[in-house]
Amino acid sequence: MTDIEEIIQKLVDFRNERDWEQFHNAKDLALAISIEAAELLELFLWKEPDEASQEKIKKELADIFAFALLLANKFGLDVKKIILDKIEENNSKYPAEKAKGTAKKYNELDK
Amino acid sequence: MTDIEEIIQKLVDFRNERDWEQFHNAKDLALAISIEAAELLELFLWKEPDEASQEKIKKELADIFAFALLLANKFGLDVKKIILDKIEENNSKYPAEKAKGTAKKYNELDK
Amino acid sequence: MTDIEEIIQKLVDFRNERDWEQFHNAKDLALAISIEAAELLELFLWKEPDEASQEKIKKELADIFAFALLLANKFGLDVKKIILDKIEENNSKYPAEKAKGTAKKYNELDK
Amino acid sequence: MTDIEEIIQKLVDFRNERDWEQFHNAKDLALAISIEAAELLELFLWKEPDEASQEKIKKELADIFAFALLLANKFGLDVKKIILDKIEENNSKYPAEKAKGTAKKYNELDK
Repeated sequence: MTDIEEIIQKLVDFRNERDWEQFHNAKDLALAISIEAAELLELFLWKEPDEASQEKIKKELADIFAFALLLANKFGLDVKKIILDKIEENNSKYPAEKAKGTAKKYNELDK
Repeated sequence: MTDIEEIIQKLVDFRNERDWEQFHNAKDLALAISIEAAELLELFLWKEPDEASQEKIKKELADIFAFALLLANKFGLDVKKIILDKIEENNSKYPAEKAKGTAKKYNELDK
Repeated sequence: MTDIEEIIQKLVDFRNERDWEQFHNAKDLALAISIEAAELLELFLWKEPDEASQEKIKKELADIFAFALLLANKFGLDVKKIILDKIEENNSKYPAEKAKGTAKKYNELDK
Repeated sequence: MTDIEEIIQKLVDFRNERDWEQFHNAKDLALAISIEAAELLELFLWKEPDEASQEKIKKELADIFAFALLLANKFGLDVKKIILDKIEENNSKYPAEKAKGTAKKYNELDK
């Protein structure tokens, strides 16, 4: 069992022990990810990037990963594959020679 | 190298080839996660949970994982550990006997 | 003074009494709006649309309006005008004959 | 008719001409607000607060106001009243003498 499979197994066991699968439709899982992402964001509100509490960042990141993994699992997605595939796609959208050192969006790289 | 370490390595290589680390302060990484989370959410807007495009869900989930892993990596976090630690903490906040079958928040479980 | 100007005046007075303008740069105001939007969203998590607490919806909506008005005020925007202008723009993007009864995005209306 | 009532009337007319009320349940309206809030946030991604396009800020703010007003209207809320009420509540949570010059959250003001 890979690390990712092991984590997903524990998340699924936790969910099943509480009979929570009934609530975990894809739309609500997507809502949950957004909500946790905003809780992470709140740690930086009115602050400089390095002023946020690392302890709290850990917890909010963990929550984001948890719901994202549950949603990936719901669709039987291979988490490693979908990320590597997206890096491949981004390789074409953001060729290193054009994208280097600039934060421009892909549709602005030739301007 | 574990799966997670391998994915992070590829994300870091992609970032470095483009000299993008200068933009990846923790606050902007948190912003990026929220932005991608909302792009995932948009796939469900005005729709039933099962009406969203699975192809697009894959891509938006990949983007969420990518930025979340880059942020975890920035703080040298052990991704597996922080998630398992949070499951442990949730075990206490949501004891199976009290939480079973209900979506109530932990501070409402005894009401 | 219009209603909107009156509300903005009170928001600005509240901010100034606390010497908070120093924190209210446009980026952090945008973060604040997203954070409050997610707090509103959380009222619907795992629930049917009609199960959210109306009392709490009032408060989260008020927070969203507050930060959105402060951001509009920061750029000297005429709130009524920018909304009416956007409705005009949407009139073209979503012609009533094509958009009627469908939730399709504007770039999918002819498919 | 106040400014706010006039704006809401135009938003409602636009919605009804397209027979879109069927999609505007409270949960999806909350989703829409979050999605637009993230589109506003994206204008600041990787950027300094003053580097975002004012033209685009206008449009995203307009979208946020539009959905927030539609949600307020759905519950028959008096928009001016709910914001003024929240300012009152914040007056107590953030007394000027304690909150002045600090971005601390209300539950940390006495520490």
